[in-house]
Amino acid sequence: MPTVNLPPEDLAGARTLRAAIAQINPIVGDIAGNVEAILESISQARHFNPDLMIFPEMVVTGYPIDDLALRPAFADASKAAVATLAEKIDQEGSGETLVILGYLDRSTAPENALAVIHRGRVIARYVKRHLPNYGVFDEFRHFQSGSDSLILRFAGVDISFAICEDIWREDGLVADLRQARPGLVVVINGSPFERAKEDLRRKLVEKRTAQIAAPIIYCNMTGGQDDLVFDGASFVMGSDGEILARAPAFEESVFAVDIPVLLATGRANLSNGEGEFGSRPLPLHSTKIAAAIAPLLSEEEEIWAALKMGLGDYVGKNGFASVALGISGGIDSALVATLACDALGPSRVHGVCLPSKFSSDHSLSDAKELARNLGMKDRVIDIEPIVASFRAATKLTGIAEENIQARVRGSLLMGISNQEGHLILATGNKSELAVGYSTLYGDAVGGFAPIKDLFKVDVWDLARWRNRVALEQGEVPPIPVNSIEKEPSAELREGQRDRDSLPEYQVLDQILKLYIDGGGDARLIISAGFEKSLVERIIAMVDRAEYKRRQYPPGTKVSPIAFGKDRRLPMTSHWKES
Amino acid sequence: MPTVNLPPEDLAGARTLRAAIAQINPIVGDIAGNVEAILESISQARHFNPDLMIFPEMVVTGYPIDDLALRPAFADASKAAVATLAEKIDQEGSGETLVILGYLDRSTAPENALAVIHRGRVIARYVKRHLPNYGVFDEFRHFQSGSDSLILRFAGVDISFAICEDIWREDGLVADLRQARPGLVVVINGSPFERAKEDLRRKLVEKRTAQIAAPIIYCNMTGGQDDLVFDGASFVMGSDGEILARAPAFEESVFAVDIPVLLATGRANLSNGEGEFGSRPLPLHSTKIAAAIAPLLSEEEEIWAALKMGLGDYVGKNGFASVALGISGGIDSALVATLACDALGPSRVHGVCLPSKFSSDHSLSDAKELARNLGMKDRVIDIEPIVASFRAATKLTGIAEENIQARVRGSLLMGISNQEGHLILATGNKSELAVGYSTLYGDAVGGFAPIKDLFKVDVWDLARWRNRVALEQGEVPPIPVNSIEKEPSAELREGQRDRDSLPEYQVLDQILKLYIDGGGDARLIISAGFEKSLVERIIAMVDRAEYKRRQYPPGTKVSPIAFGKDRRLPMTSHWKES
Repeated sequence: MPTVNLPPEDLAGARTLRAAIAQINPIVGDIAGNVEAILESISQARHFNPDLMIFPEMVVTGYPIDDLALRPAFADASKAAVATLAEKIDQEGSGETLVILGYLDRSTAPENALAVIHRGRVIARYVKRHLPNYGVFDEFRHFQSGSDSLILRFAGVDISFAICEDIWREDGLVADLRQARPGLVVVINGSPFERAKEDLRRKLVEKRTAQIAAPIIYCNMTGGQDDLVFDGASFVMGSDGEILARAPAFEESVFAVDIPVLLATGRANLSNGEGEFGSRPLPLHSTKIAAAIAPLLSEEEEIWAALKMGLGDYVGKNGFASVALGISGGIDSALVATLACDALGPSRVHGVCLPSKFSSDHSLSDAKELARNLGMKDRVIDIEPIVASFRAATKLTGIAEENIQARVRGSLLMGISNQEGHLILATGNKSELAVGYSTLYGDAVGGFAPIKDLFKVDVWDLARWRNRVALEQGEVPPIPVNSIEKEPSAELREGQRDRDSLPEYQVLDQILKLYIDGGGDARLIISAGFEKSLVERIIAMVDRAEYKRRQYPPGTKVSPIAFGKDRRLPMTSHWKES
Repeated sequence: MPTVNLPPEDLAGARTLRAAIAQINPIVGDIAGNVEAILESISQARHFNPDLMIFPEMVVTGYPIDDLALRPAFADASKAAVATLAEKIDQEGSGETLVILGYLDRSTAPENALAVIHRGRVIARYVKRHLPNYGVFDEFRHFQSGSDSLILRFAGVDISFAICEDIWREDGLVADLRQARPGLVVVINGSPFERAKEDLRRKLVEKRTAQIAAPIIYCNMTGGQDDLVFDGASFVMGSDGEILARAPAFEESVFAVDIPVLLATGRANLSNGEGEFGSRPLPLHSTKIAAAIAPLLSEEEEIWAALKMGLGDYVGKNGFASVALGISGGIDSALVATLACDALGPSRVHGVCLPSKFSSDHSLSDAKELARNLGMKDRVIDIEPIVASFRAATKLTGIAEENIQARVRGSLLMGISNQEGHLILATGNKSELAVGYSTLYGDAVGGFAPIKDLFKVDVWDLARWRNRVALEQGEVPPIPVNSIEKEPSAELREGQRDRDSLPEYQVLDQILKLYIDGGGDARLIISAGFEKSLVERIIAMVDRAEYKRRQYPPGTKVSPIAFGKDRRLPMTSHWKES
């Protein structure tokens, strides 16, 4: 790419900085692998000839690292990796690019830090000032906060830095930047996905660009880590609030963009006192990059992509070649099977039909149709002889008899897992998990529970949507219509229906959303128009089932408050909402 | 009790305050019940005619309450309960006693607060200044901290207040009190038990009495709450470091003590500006109370009492009438059965022998001997026919065949639980849990795992100790000698022994203690003299088993770092200690 060299002062107060943004998917604890991925991204970006290149929060260690943050050996490895990276970047010919990345540092205590690398060394670092300690975050436990801003003059532009939570607060860093008026703000993030988060972030950054009067680079990581998934969806916004570039959500991506910036006036006043960097006349890029603005996903596309990445990365990062799950002919297992096939390919997905004497005729045929539609492997094991052997061994009636069927299924799946090496997927949804409508060590077995954060009504919606997408693409809709339309039943006794013991899901899920996702109390839910006795009954069911959720497998968070780290409640509690 | 009334000024700068300390066992969320227990304690203490009466941290709500702290309705109920209590205490004739208790308050955010009640109203409150946010604690998530000290002049004495963590820090409150020189410091606590904690607390309070030059009342709660247990062991220490009174550990107790204190000099300078309280000439107690100093427990007594209370309260507070567990003839299940019988009485404990074709002859006879010794119920179910039915249904060899036996046992126990209503106890120990030497949904099933925080060597020690205690009391030692002395084996295949795949427990447990309880890294453990390859192998096993521990039942913490809230690590992690 030909370039024209002009010194910055020829530009009458304005110029363009070319930024490359690497939205990559690090693996927690795999420092060597993450360093490789960083170098590979820099190499990919080299043909853009970027002035600066930005990586996500804690990209060197992966994120979140929980109590690994407290291990000095881990922090030492992270710091050493950054030093090595600085040298390698220079050796590989990108020393003039200002490289910005997140890592674990440790001074008197661990720090969530950002390194600025230039010409083979770390020329500055910034420590996250605002630590999130709510929801899924425990950063007060793991890090000490920084107290200083960092402003660097690079190629005549004052650049400032922030890490994720820093820009969500009006005080502290944001207030300082409104004073300091940098020419560009670089924000590195490990911002987990939840529904409609993109919109929140965009509005926030729009507000900040206006307040600071500078363009903002918002670089987010992508990938699944246990029950979190990071969507990426990194973007660059001009000081006027215009989106200049946006990466696709839920994909690794290295992209470049030319950002119009104002040159700094006055003496360089650098917060680390080291003087001005990049004062060589930087190549002005003769060709403007046509930066891509990836289209936003629809609500269903977004959730599906999140669930796919969450599952795919749990499987991949933990070294499983394949998954297996029970397919009952019902909607939950059908959706999980479809998701697994989309995430891993049908050859890596094993469906197991486990009919009992209470299974209706359509259960097996619907499950078989599903497997056929998806092209995944399936097999049938009749559980009745095993259930009978339990019945012969000990008295099992009522709930005990219902549950033993679920547990025989669970044990068979785990046996198949042990024999063949698959990760077992639990197929429970959020509504069931909420009210305890699942059998511990039965349908609750598994290493991962991909749809545990989807309410039942969302399960139906996504199933219909996924079938529609198939139709639009000229494919066979994977999920049998009968699985979508049949009356929900656990089929653990004759003629059992979910609505014998639960209200209609359309009602139940509204109450659950208010109570769990909304953090509402009984008073609020009743005032929203639901019957008092019903609200109290549902809340009591949710509270009572806490012990079951503690033993449930992890699964991808997609809602504002998922079961798990987001919502920490005692098992032993006599508190009653009323 | 006859009393002599003398005004305080006759005492030439010194007097005695009579404090009653209520070390009680609240239930999380049971505000009405906790209020009842508080009133009952005040009534019990009335014959002492105490000047002040002290209750533990968060006694109104129970502790810890996790995210219940964030619910406005819960905080409202807590605040309302304190107001009601103040009135009732007065109505019941104890209005002149200064009552001090912990509760959940909420101003702009939730607060871990202390109320001072006098003559029917709350005359002052203090908000915890130092919030613990490490180990099992998440108080930055749940509370906002206070910023002020509270000093109240009562009956001529300046009394100051602290909540638990406040006195563990040199800065903040302690620094302020060293300046302010109150005549008495009241510390209310929800301090969870761990080995040797009593010694730590005593030395800390000794240091603080010297620094502040005042006596300290240390009131701690008692009782089990999920995986924590509070030992109580409340005590009062004179300004010279002498223990004036101490309550027994792991028992509810209301005790009184006369504390020599210095009268305040100068003008009352109260932090809440409300003037002086209790300035009536308080009755001077003509009879001195002979306060009891409960003897300290031995290391084994203390652990046993902790485990008994942890199990007993989980069972009791969650409304179970009985427990059941698999008894294999091995040491772990023998110890858990003995513990359960000690905690609940043998009539509430159901042992189930679940022999397979790999069970040795002594397995059944040792289990039967155990049940006979304990006087608990037992039954035998041969699992072989059920295992055979699984084998007939699907191919199960190697690990898959081993695990199916454990899972048949788990399903049978859960079936019995569903049929008869028992809480199932998992019998795994910390060593097994650490290296993943347990079968998910097999021996890992249960609502509670009483010895999950005991290393295998501690299991043996406690078994021998418990037998010795029985002998000393002229009882039959409950645990068969053979169960203690036999070679550890899971008996899931012919001739299997733990040491085929693990080092001797004496070595393993030392490495595990350094890695888990000590938070050490590989370098440190190797430098302690263990072979590098062994250390790396053990650490890799521990790290790899994280997913199993996530699905394991809760159990009582007795070590500095228990699995669970104390130790939060990602499941997906490629970090390797070396």
